[in-house]
Amino acid sequence: MTGFRFDLFATDGAARLGRVHTAHGPVDTPAFMPVGTAATVKAMMPESVAATGAQVLLGNTYHLMLRPGAERVARLGGLHEFMNWPGPILTDSGGFQVMSLAKLRKITEQGVTFQSHIDGSRHELTPERSMDIQRLLDADITMAFDECTPFPATPEQAAQSMRLSMRWARRSRDAFAEREGYALFGIVQGGIYPDLRAESVAALVATGFDGYAVGGLAVGEGQEAMFAVLDATTPLLPADRPRYLMGVGRPSDIVGAVLRGIDMFDCVMPTRSGRTAQAFTRRGTVNIRNARHQDDPRPLDEACSCPACRNYSRAYLHHLVRSEEILGPMLLTWHNIQYYQDIMRGLRAAIAEGRTARFAEAALAAEALGDIDPL
Amino acid sequence: MTGFRFDLFATDGAARLGRVHTAHGPVDTPAFMPVGTAATVKAMMPESVAATGAQVLLGNTYHLMLRPGAERVARLGGLHEFMNWPGPILTDSGGFQVMSLAKLRKITEQGVTFQSHIDGSRHELTPERSMDIQRLLDADITMAFDECTPFPATPEQAAQSMRLSMRWARRSRDAFAEREGYALFGIVQGGIYPDLRAESVAALVATGFDGYAVGGLAVGEGQEAMFAVLDATTPLLPADRPRYLMGVGRPSDIVGAVLRGIDMFDCVMPTRSGRTAQAFTRRGTVNIRNARHQDDPRPLDEACSCPACRNYSRAYLHHLVRSEEILGPMLLTWHNIQYYQDIMRGLRAAIAEGRTARFAEAALAAEALGDIDPL
Repeated sequence: MTGFRFDLFATDGAARLGRVHTAHGPVDTPAFMPVGTAATVKAMMPESVAATGAQVLLGNTYHLMLRPGAERVARLGGLHEFMNWPGPILTDSGGFQVMSLAKLRKITEQGVTFQSHIDGSRHELTPERSMDIQRLLDADITMAFDECTPFPATPEQAAQSMRLSMRWARRSRDAFAEREGYALFGIVQGGIYPDLRAESVAALVATGFDGYAVGGLAVGEGQEAMFAVLDATTPLLPADRPRYLMGVGRPSDIVGAVLRGIDMFDCVMPTRSGRTAQAFTRRGTVNIRNARHQDDPRPLDEACSCPACRNYSRAYLHHLVRSEEILGPMLLTWHNIQYYQDIMRGLRAAIAEGRTARFAEAALAAEALGDIDPL
Repeated sequence: MTGFRFDLFATDGAARLGRVHTAHGPVDTPAFMPVGTAATVKAMMPESVAATGAQVLLGNTYHLMLRPGAERVARLGGLHEFMNWPGPILTDSGGFQVMSLAKLRKITEQGVTFQSHIDGSRHELTPERSMDIQRLLDADITMAFDECTPFPATPEQAAQSMRLSMRWARRSRDAFAEREGYALFGIVQGGIYPDLRAESVAALVATGFDGYAVGGLAVGEGQEAMFAVLDATTPLLPADRPRYLMGVGRPSDIVGAVLRGIDMFDCVMPTRSGRTAQAFTRRGTVNIRNARHQDDPRPLDEACSCPACRNYSRAYLHHLVRSEEILGPMLLTWHNIQYYQDIMRGLRAAIAEGRTARFAEAALAAEALGDIDPL
């Protein structure tokens, strides 16, 4: 087991090519982390996720503490063993989901009390309990416990929320059990306000973290506002630590954020889209449920190496979706994860070769095509 | 492409070890055919189905004629190409599903008219149209079009139904387009009445088929009555042709039928059970949803080589089922298909070595355990 470390190999403008070393192996950056909310990347075998090139998964503290329970996962050998994913795992802190999913939330300086959305049982999350849960899950990368600032928020609301998160970040740091190869990331908050973001960065850097996440984005502010926050924030972050943009996003969001110096991403979009018949392709986003695919013998994406594209026609995928067959979500999820990993691989190669801007342009053009007949 | 052929290698009592050669490859018998109703074995990649040792799939004429349509499948290269299953495929004739699923059925000497259960559209199935559809699907083994005799049925009802099926079998034979490596099977009917079964066999043999199926069983008559029908029927069937017991069954049904000279089987049980948290194991049938599995670190079945058993605990499978994660049906279906294929492989080895009765005893003892704590 080696220590947690971030190697920065090359830059191209603000874009960075690097590698994060964790207790369970390396992650080449820029990296996209498929979301494994409840200890599974929905509709995929973990071997298949790995086959796409994904090196790290995201797990959800909120979901896992409620079911099957963090202590149970620990007794069963930790999350890697439990879900058969031997590679690195990052867990979020529960702060975001507790605000978006739980019932009867009550926030105090101490933490958050809430009712489970599954069975109504009462629970408490504090910075200390969140650290404990993530340790029990055996997360390679633990996220500091933070409050999810609502959007929209006034400068006063955003400041108050951010400062609470900074005090919780300090308590997270104090409670985090140091282990060789394991890391704790702080989360920059402050809404859409550059001065609050700067204050948040300063507070986190003063505390000191192994990596820095940008939180509270992709909550409705739009891509332009999100990029403006990144433009104001990433230059302030320590260059020698990985940077993670939480919950983002569409391919164009990711490409734009890499151009602004972000190294890590997670989003439910590729997996959720796979379960709703949406496929990302090099020739635009495709709704395979659309009747115009019913006789189409062509693959979803000729340049893709996933089984959905290698072995099946659009007509077949359309048939699976119309027939509500489980193989539909299985194949489309696999494809979308492959597409996202291909973009990340493409970005890494482009950064190494100093042609990131050109790569980004092509990737954005593909997304802009939308669901039209592409060939 | 070789011609359709059945090699009989060994017998042990009435049990037979053989191999069926089809246009798309061989099938070792006794064989279990996973059901791929709508051009997919539900919740499985075809590569995974093949990995269990399955060599032949069953497709459903009724479902496929309604969606996506037989002509469409033909334009897309046939069912093998459409669903990425390069091996042999047997299709049923539609006779059974039209009686169990379709609406407003009307049966005449000519055939059956009905309304689709999907969209209410009107369709007709006749022996000639059924042969045409199965040819369009490119089935290696085509089943004669028959009427599904209701159960219970009086001797008069069973006789009338069987004789209609025999006339339809003759028309199926006449309409079947002979192709190298492709086969047409007749279906013995006659309910639970030995004399009617004998009359049916005589009629089919007089017409002449490449294989013979026993139909109209597993419809509520019980295992004892089913075995009694087999005891009266299989000795009458030509020894040099494969024998297929349709829609059967639990492992004990299959083992008992092999002891009575049956070579081929299909059933939705392993796949359907996999979607309802039921797993067949060497230590009894397990309902993995049961709370007693929630902390169990042991595999579902220690002796099984499938991914569900190699890589996961009962606790994890329980968690997936409780969380309604798609990976639950994926893994449990894989396991059940593996279990069925392991039984067939075990039966083939036992027949070759003249110890079929002993193997059968052990297999039946495992099933009899039921859902108890097995270790």
